Amino acid sequence: MKNAVALVSGGMDSAVVLALARESGYAVHALSVRYGQRHTSELDAADRVARTLGAASHKTVDVDLRSIGGSALTDDIEVPVHAGDAPEEAGIPVTYVPARNTIMLSLALGWAEVLGAADIFCGVNAVDYSGYPDCRPAFVEAFERLANLATKAGVEGAGIRVHAPLMRMGKDEIVREGLRLGVDFGQTVSCYRADAQGRACGRCDACRLRAAGFAAAGVADPTRYA
Amino acid sequence: MKNAVALVSGGMDSAVVLALARESGYAVHALSVRYGQRHTSELDAADRVARTLGAASHKTVDVDLRSIGGSALTDDIEVPVHAGDAPEEAGIPVTYVPARNTIMLSLALGWAEVLGAADIFCGVNAVDYSGYPDCRPAFVEAFERLANLATKAGVEGAGIRVHAPLMRMGKDEIVREGLRLGVDFGQTVSCYRADAQGRACGRCDACRLRAAGFAAAGVADPTRYA
Repeated sequence: MKNAVALVSGGMDSAVVLALARESGYAVHALSVRYGQRHTSELDAADRVARTLGAASHKTVDVDLRSIGGSALTDDIEVPVHAGDAPEEAGIPVTYVPARNTIMLSLALGWAEVLGAADIFCGVNAVDYSGYPDCRPAFVEAFERLANLATKAGVEGAGIRVHAPLMRMGKDEIVREGLRLGVDFGQTVSCYRADAQGRACGRCDACRLRAAGFAAAGVADPTRYA
Repeated sequence: MKNAVALVSGGMDSAVVLALARESGYAVHALSVRYGQRHTSELDAADRVARTLGAASHKTVDVDLRSIGGSALTDDIEVPVHAGDAPEEAGIPVTYVPARNTIMLSLALGWAEVLGAADIFCGVNAVDYSGYPDCRPAFVEAFERLANLATKAGVEGAGIRVHAPLMRMGKDEIVREGLRLGVDFGQTVSCYRADAQGRACGRCDACRLRAAGFAAAGVADPTRYA
């Protein structure tokens, strides 16, 4: 069985990605990153998800992005909440973490090299992406290109592929794909403001996107709300 | 004065890069990374170098690459030493840290976004580079391309430039450039096996490249050897 590394945040998207990689026949090594996020209960969720979906191993790497700052997810900046159908802000929101996906994919790349894995999976998604620049196809392609120049595996070996199987799926399609694969979304935590028990606020952008996905897919929302 | 971020390891190359960025008129924010390296005295050296060469600020970010493993610089693998003129191994050596430059540049990119800096400086060098794949011009170009797709600054702003001014310089040229700029190489630590006081072993690849640089430049070697 070929090794792959999958970034698993504890949210719903990366759970579906892990299940897809398993379905494709990989021994999946799940990587989570403790980057100073305020919603650390997502890391407990990542543990549950990795175990339930049969990851070959699960590692959580520490990187202190709080010392760099610049995001409502790591700083003392308030995560915005929305009442009812209030429009979302235009542009890149304050929950954007500078260079987060670049940093996380770099860590996945380092671990892939150590494992001799040529495949990296991530849940990057360009549809319901909250306006983050590092969630677009061109970003993933540029990272794959970099990975093949940066590493022993790229230079001397078989090359590195970066898979983003959810890239063009809407949240409702991700929900249906997860249900087909047996993902228990009740185990996952998407909320930016989740409490210590992983209960969601229901009002941040992540909660709204997630709830809209279940609604559009026509299935019951298993999210535990605070 | 425009802000720039410079990766400063405590070694001689990045000290020269910091001095070059200062000479070009930037307010330079020095970034060091505590990644689990066994030679932590280089981080003390980075502190001295940043202060002496007039960095606008200096930050050390923690990222635990030891948990990923795969390198003699972070693991319990022995760093190779050479007796006299013994040839170096062919290929990528065991001191290669998987994806290290990708990870460090990603962190620099994150901080650059927070500071509103469009310029990142690093000491990557393709001449005396010990055979590491992430020390070549194509790698730096691919990272710059990625940076401009990954970030708010690249998408909405003036774009990001990644400078590697030492890329094509031999170690002797780096020595001469540093002396011209007033760099005190006695403050820097290059050795992979440096002791807690920053004294060099004189026998690892990093020590041999450094000593050869001073010899070829025809200047006295200020390195403190154990």
